[in-house]
Amino acid sequence: MKKSKSPNKKNNRFYPREECGIAGVYNIPEAANFAYLGIYALQHRGQESAGIVSTDSQLLYRYAGMGKVNDVFNSAKLKQLTGHMAIAHNRYSTTGASFLRNAQPIRFESRLGTLSLAHNGNLTNAWNLRKQLEQSGSIFQTTVDSEVIGHLLAKSSADNFEGALIESLCKIKGAYSLLLMTRDAMYAVRDPHGFRPLALGRKDDGWVVASETCALDIMDATYERDVQPGEMLIFDKSGVRSVFPFEKSTQNLCIFEFIYFSRPDSMIFEQSVYNVRIELGKILAREAPVEADIVISVPDSSNVAALGYSRESGIPYHMGLIRSHYIGRTFIEPDQKIRDFGAKIKYNAIASVVSGKRVIVVDDSIMRGTTQRKIVTMLKTAGAKEIHVRITSSMTKYACYYGIDIPSHSELIASSHTLEEIRKYLRVNSIAYLSIDGMEQAAGKQRNYCNACFSGNYPVPLGEMEAESYSNQKNLFEEYGVEEH
Amino acid sequence: MKKSKSPNKKNNRFYPREECGIAGVYNIPEAANFAYLGIYALQHRGQESAGIVSTDSQLLYRYAGMGKVNDVFNSAKLKQLTGHMAIAHNRYSTTGASFLRNAQPIRFESRLGTLSLAHNGNLTNAWNLRKQLEQSGSIFQTTVDSEVIGHLLAKSSADNFEGALIESLCKIKGAYSLLLMTRDAMYAVRDPHGFRPLALGRKDDGWVVASETCALDIMDATYERDVQPGEMLIFDKSGVRSVFPFEKSTQNLCIFEFIYFSRPDSMIFEQSVYNVRIELGKILAREAPVEADIVISVPDSSNVAALGYSRESGIPYHMGLIRSHYIGRTFIEPDQKIRDFGAKIKYNAIASVVSGKRVIVVDDSIMRGTTQRKIVTMLKTAGAKEIHVRITSSMTKYACYYGIDIPSHSELIASSHTLEEIRKYLRVNSIAYLSIDGMEQAAGKQRNYCNACFSGNYPVPLGEMEAESYSNQKNLFEEYGVEEH
Amino acid sequence: MKKSKSPNKKNNRFYPREECGIAGVYNIPEAANFAYLGIYALQHRGQESAGIVSTDSQLLYRYAGMGKVNDVFNSAKLKQLTGHMAIAHNRYSTTGASFLRNAQPIRFESRLGTLSLAHNGNLTNAWNLRKQLEQSGSIFQTTVDSEVIGHLLAKSSADNFEGALIESLCKIKGAYSLLLMTRDAMYAVRDPHGFRPLALGRKDDGWVVASETCALDIMDATYERDVQPGEMLIFDKSGVRSVFPFEKSTQNLCIFEFIYFSRPDSMIFEQSVYNVRIELGKILAREAPVEADIVISVPDSSNVAALGYSRESGIPYHMGLIRSHYIGRTFIEPDQKIRDFGAKIKYNAIASVVSGKRVIVVDDSIMRGTTQRKIVTMLKTAGAKEIHVRITSSMTKYACYYGIDIPSHSELIASSHTLEEIRKYLRVNSIAYLSIDGMEQAAGKQRNYCNACFSGNYPVPLGEMEAESYSNQKNLFEEYGVEEH
Amino acid sequence: MKKSKSPNKKNNRFYPREECGIAGVYNIPEAANFAYLGIYALQHRGQESAGIVSTDSQLLYRYAGMGKVNDVFNSAKLKQLTGHMAIAHNRYSTTGASFLRNAQPIRFESRLGTLSLAHNGNLTNAWNLRKQLEQSGSIFQTTVDSEVIGHLLAKSSADNFEGALIESLCKIKGAYSLLLMTRDAMYAVRDPHGFRPLALGRKDDGWVVASETCALDIMDATYERDVQPGEMLIFDKSGVRSVFPFEKSTQNLCIFEFIYFSRPDSMIFEQSVYNVRIELGKILAREAPVEADIVISVPDSSNVAALGYSRESGIPYHMGLIRSHYIGRTFIEPDQKIRDFGAKIKYNAIASVVSGKRVIVVDDSIMRGTTQRKIVTMLKTAGAKEIHVRITSSMTKYACYYGIDIPSHSELIASSHTLEEIRKYLRVNSIAYLSIDGMEQAAGKQRNYCNACFSGNYPVPLGEMEAESYSNQKNLFEEYGVEEH
Repeated sequence: MKKSKSPNKKNNRFYPREECGIAGVYNIPEAANFAYLGIYALQHRGQESAGIVSTDSQLLYRYAGMGKVNDVFNSAKLKQLTGHMAIAHNRYSTTGASFLRNAQPIRFESRLGTLSLAHNGNLTNAWNLRKQLEQSGSIFQTTVDSEVIGHLLAKSSADNFEGALIESLCKIKGAYSLLLMTRDAMYAVRDPHGFRPLALGRKDDGWVVASETCALDIMDATYERDVQPGEMLIFDKSGVRSVFPFEKSTQNLCIFEFIYFSRPDSMIFEQSVYNVRIELGKILAREAPVEADIVISVPDSSNVAALGYSRESGIPYHMGLIRSHYIGRTFIEPDQKIRDFGAKIKYNAIASVVSGKRVIVVDDSIMRGTTQRKIVTMLKTAGAKEIHVRITSSMTKYACYYGIDIPSHSELIASSHTLEEIRKYLRVNSIAYLSIDGMEQAAGKQRNYCNACFSGNYPVPLGEMEAESYSNQKNLFEEYGVEEH
Repeated sequence: MKKSKSPNKKNNRFYPREECGIAGVYNIPEAANFAYLGIYALQHRGQESAGIVSTDSQLLYRYAGMGKVNDVFNSAKLKQLTGHMAIAHNRYSTTGASFLRNAQPIRFESRLGTLSLAHNGNLTNAWNLRKQLEQSGSIFQTTVDSEVIGHLLAKSSADNFEGALIESLCKIKGAYSLLLMTRDAMYAVRDPHGFRPLALGRKDDGWVVASETCALDIMDATYERDVQPGEMLIFDKSGVRSVFPFEKSTQNLCIFEFIYFSRPDSMIFEQSVYNVRIELGKILAREAPVEADIVISVPDSSNVAALGYSRESGIPYHMGLIRSHYIGRTFIEPDQKIRDFGAKIKYNAIASVVSGKRVIVVDDSIMRGTTQRKIVTMLKTAGAKEIHVRITSSMTKYACYYGIDIPSHSELIASSHTLEEIRKYLRVNSIAYLSIDGMEQAAGKQRNYCNACFSGNYPVPLGEMEAESYSNQKNLFEEYGVEEH
Repeated sequence: MKKSKSPNKKNNRFYPREECGIAGVYNIPEAANFAYLGIYALQHRGQESAGIVSTDSQLLYRYAGMGKVNDVFNSAKLKQLTGHMAIAHNRYSTTGASFLRNAQPIRFESRLGTLSLAHNGNLTNAWNLRKQLEQSGSIFQTTVDSEVIGHLLAKSSADNFEGALIESLCKIKGAYSLLLMTRDAMYAVRDPHGFRPLALGRKDDGWVVASETCALDIMDATYERDVQPGEMLIFDKSGVRSVFPFEKSTQNLCIFEFIYFSRPDSMIFEQSVYNVRIELGKILAREAPVEADIVISVPDSSNVAALGYSRESGIPYHMGLIRSHYIGRTFIEPDQKIRDFGAKIKYNAIASVVSGKRVIVVDDSIMRGTTQRKIVTMLKTAGAKEIHVRITSSMTKYACYYGIDIPSHSELIASSHTLEEIRKYLRVNSIAYLSIDGMEQAAGKQRNYCNACFSGNYPVPLGEMEAESYSNQKNLFEEYGVEEH
Repeated sequence: MKKSKSPNKKNNRFYPREECGIAGVYNIPEAANFAYLGIYALQHRGQESAGIVSTDSQLLYRYAGMGKVNDVFNSAKLKQLTGHMAIAHNRYSTTGASFLRNAQPIRFESRLGTLSLAHNGNLTNAWNLRKQLEQSGSIFQTTVDSEVIGHLLAKSSADNFEGALIESLCKIKGAYSLLLMTRDAMYAVRDPHGFRPLALGRKDDGWVVASETCALDIMDATYERDVQPGEMLIFDKSGVRSVFPFEKSTQNLCIFEFIYFSRPDSMIFEQSVYNVRIELGKILAREAPVEADIVISVPDSSNVAALGYSRESGIPYHMGLIRSHYIGRTFIEPDQKIRDFGAKIKYNAIASVVSGKRVIVVDDSIMRGTTQRKIVTMLKTAGAKEIHVRITSSMTKYACYYGIDIPSHSELIASSHTLEEIRKYLRVNSIAYLSIDGMEQAAGKQRNYCNACFSGNYPVPLGEMEAESYSNQKNLFEEYGVEEH
């Protein structure tokens, strides 16, 4: 018998993973309860830990735990998180090991009072700032890059919170959609490039901010608009104020949010994820047509794009792969090896659909290629006559420094293999990726997207020092190994 | 703040629920580990408890617990379940409260040695037999109807296990797909009507039996054929024997297995569930066409049928409703009521898909109608212009006595409302159900199906006594309330 | 690093262990809550599982779990156990493996309605009865001997519960203090020999029955008298009735209850345990005097007797050994062996007390002698000049068949070694045991005691069949190994 | 039914409680495992949380959790804490709420590398330092005063760790026995007054430091001497160095360690706790004799002193009160009030010992007097004819600022009541406290003790600011209420 495997940690490592979802609630009774609904709806963005900090304008109440939102919180705990304001966070760790201590929102005492913050994104100069802050006497108790923001705030020379926040944010580089909370006010900020999404909604007399609009839907809040790249929103007694405190910068919205991460029922960057995915499929069908009998998707992230491909090509869409939603934390493999076990616990091919057919398989991206290879085997075993792989993104060749857990350069199959080599590795009849132009066309030409993981053109270039910083931050404490829970 | 809600227990009560999945493994090393994979793949058939009994021909090892297969078992526990033979069970309770004590497989000592059994189905005369057995001195320690079989075995006058089993099974009525295990042999039996499915597969030199073929797929076993209605298979040292010990009877395969329960990647009753669902959708499109812009499904059980409807009607298929797979055990609603909260934690409508559209919503069945009503509201809020409900089964008017947790007669909306009344209750533009003939055509006319929940024609009629028995068994111990775990 | 050790299971195995405490409450509001207090006070009699069954005269509510009373029950669970009548049980398993399924009180359905029973003691003919019952068609779902009683009740030909109970009890042999509960009545029975204690108390208009009076004290109940050997008390609407349904028999009260098991603040067999222990020490001082500087005890069970020894001998009593009360379930030993580790996690010697002194060590009994040998080493390391062991019981040479977990004959050091050999094994200057007459004198000559473990004179002789039965029952299912929890 | 009560939090609040035990291990294989044994032996000093940090000279490994040492650690977790050096801590919170985040040892990153510290004691100027540190840009993530030390270290201008440590410690006031660890070295420091104990031991080629010598005994380490007040020991590759970096100060050893906290088998302040307690009892017998029949103690802390009283007075010692060791976390009281419930779940009086007797009750101290009052009632109910309370310490009138959880001034019965009023409140025949001189005589006149809680003479006087600081620190975050676990 093999040792237990955690599919989240190992088998699925080849999937890009978003690090967090955040939600903030201002001036709504039972704010913590709504914040809870918000991160419940954002669980696809991270299931390792969940936390909420609320305030009744006197104290900041915090509860956080490892695991899924529903496992961490219960009715009794939510009841203790009183007040009309709350921020919440669920995360999958990209930087910082999987410790409870790293769970957000962070809460800390400082010169500026008791503060709390929740961060989605990744800071490219966190390690350098950390080392500088340590030199000036700061101590770090977590391994998340977000802790740096707390120290910058506390060390700022500004004489009020807003000033301190602007001063601090001007020092950090990289990707951040950020929620902060004092006893009196909530702040929502999006970095000047706008890498990660952040949506603004209304509910009754209050406001809601969340990574995706699906979190607004579950709260019965109305989507107003996005927090703009470089915008800071301040929610306090005097209402809502919008400030643009940063130098102008190019927009660099993460196109992977459309391709893979976001829920298809969300609006992201003020567009429907569903519609963009339909377009991705349609353009791919035009760019890379192939004669075949059916179009299937690798569920669930590619379902909509496959439908688009089918629509454009006229080749019928079918559900040839079924995905299990019961995987859970551990999975035990017998000693006797089972073929393609890692893929089998997640997918099953339907022979009656694919048998004897020329099959187009639409998938969102290829990282290492190992899972796709197993899926191909499953489809062949189920009788597929031909297999044509169609990817709704370009070749993923470069690491992401802005908050997406893409494998390192050396592990990405496309960074060291030609298209033909990948085709052979997957043992398929043909393979095609969508062009960068095709992706951007689907996502809307009127906006500017970050395509660094495909092109290597990093909008926030990493100097030598930053590159080292980033990798150091990633390794930081990596072998801490054990921690409390 | 409202009390925690368990969506499994309350919100989703309107969904019919299969009570169990079973899997048996004979003559395969690490049998328990394969049995574990089997019930992992069958989790859609029950997630309240999971158990495995294995044997090394000397002792019978048992482990069972409340919860999902992955939560109940870990590597260390599976390692203790040694031997080449194992039977496994996961259940959602239809009869018998949700106690650990009720978890199957049952293991007990008797005149015939140590025995174990796992049962999928529902016995219609369990209560009567229970009362008779009590009168003759038996004591009952669980509230599941399956315990009756153990007592009948122990009290049989036959001088070997096989004889005792046949004698016992001749006394029980109703639905049973059954696995039994002694130290030396495994038995797989399907009731003469064949209500519930049971598939037979091969793996290397061993055999596998499971409720659905998806369990065979994950074990890399090859599907051979179904255990036939009324067939008993005996697996022992001398090989496999097939016996038909019961009086001939009509086949009455449960058509609901196709419509709702079984996984679309399974073969059930020797047919592809996927193909049958495509047919259900196609025939429904022919029986009840309507002019509209898009076809959507209530995911996931109706996805395939909706595709069939789209294919036949030519109206494009879209994914207008997204389903959350993170629901978990409890869900906390704010005190401030959220509209259609119960449906919202499970579904979200995509405005960009349905807005301004005439929408055909394909669903598998309507029990109470409450969820559908909420979904309709969600679709209207998302901007749907017209809503046309199409159901891939007939009107569910009658309770099921053969193992499906259909609400009681009085709770079923179709048992007391006309089609028009249901349409008004749901507030939709049109509604149509598939005819019984249409269902049977989709499932294949060459077989005979049970359609009792639609027609009231019960293949195993309940006499007055049996009716009382059934309801008594259901109520039995119902208020026991608390139990160990 | 060594594997975790459970001191309860391994290190302390040499201690005799009582198998259970029982408590019953009749006609007291919140009966389950008082039953809980009762078994809380009786935890020294068993900490492996705890359970309570209550009734409101309609249903029987049950909750049981593995672990200590406080860990198994909480306020919410007690609240569900409604009603004015309850029986409770905590156990350390002497027969039957440590499964949740074996936790008592048992609850079952039968011809006589829903019944519940809690048993302290050990039946000497359980295995034989079990085999007979299996032959007549009973199935056994636990491995505890008490289940036999349930089957006998259900199979009795008597036409009421009381008759059935008498008929059943007439068939069982061995030791039992028993509580039974129907919807209407509670029954307390003590076997004709009276092996195990059972005390009767009053509280307001209700009644309390418990293994020891310390359970009455915590409930604020007043001790009335013992349930007499061979007496059955029936508590129902018409009041309390006393019946003596069995043939007369000799009294054979377990003298070990005084020596080791019972709490010193309890009345047992209508005498003060504390006073008897003082006498045990005094008589031992007269029987086996020795010149020495101090008297110390092996805490806590020997504290009072050591005080008695000191009082009679005039040699000052000191607390030379300290006992840790934090042991808990597991204890991890380093790979580098620590001398006498097993004893060290439980005891520590005080050098300032024993250094340079001639020390009399009073202990209650010697089973294997391994712990005493380690304690002797600790005392020598702490500087003791001479060590004289004095045991407040006779040499334990024989197994107990009446409910005490004494090691088997072959493991008892006194069954195969002379006094001098034991002295040499323990490496002490002298050793003496109390005489059987001395023990009985301390416990009061007016009563008759069982001294089988010292003398081999078994009051309920085991025929060949019974001996086999007993050992079979002990081994039954022993390797079942894994079970639900 | 009443709500669950946590006797640790509520009922026993009247007992003074030591805040922590610490243990450090240097140059011993499996260091974490020995540190674990150390804090296991020190559990009487705190059971709310337990933690260990170890190092293999490369990384610092940390694990901490809420609960008892045995519940927090298991074999697998200890195995991950590799290395030859480890520090460990168990705590009962005196300052800082009961959050996992507050569990020690703390580990943090700083200018000086990764550091860890474990602290026993209480800083009297923590709040002021905290506010100063916040002003200079530090952020605080816990509510324990010990965090201040980490910040001072990080902000020190010294260019090596030792210098930074001395500089930092010169800024803090109050009580501290401290262990620190870097990748290369371990530091043990005791404040100049020596409030709290700290013992040094040898084991093979390594060193052990622990709060009490009982921790050395369980590790088979040899007690060498105490770490001296004002001494810093540095353990590194070059061996052990002793430094006295602080200004000379008066010794002010906590006399309460002898009276109540320490284990009787420990050496504290280089004297036997057992011997001091015998003396406390003897001197009390001389100072406050009374005619009576028996001497009993309130177990366990007063057992030895009661023996001393008996020895000196010639009045026989008896065990008239039994203490339960099974209390656990929660305890549920019935709605029907039980007399003296809070004391009853912990103590029971033995009627056969006290009935008809004139009883001297020896206890270590009186805080609020509520428990003693209940115990007196229990003894009277058990038949005691006269009750004479004798306290082995002086009247506790003042709060402790050096690490002992004594109730506030206003809650201490002796701060507002005369001896006669206390006697009347307890309803006893006589009462007497030991004189301050008597305590100091028992503890040894050659040393100087802190008697602030009796006399109000605080060795480290609290200026107005410090007093406020102390109380602020205590209240800090008090209502944070909820936190992760």
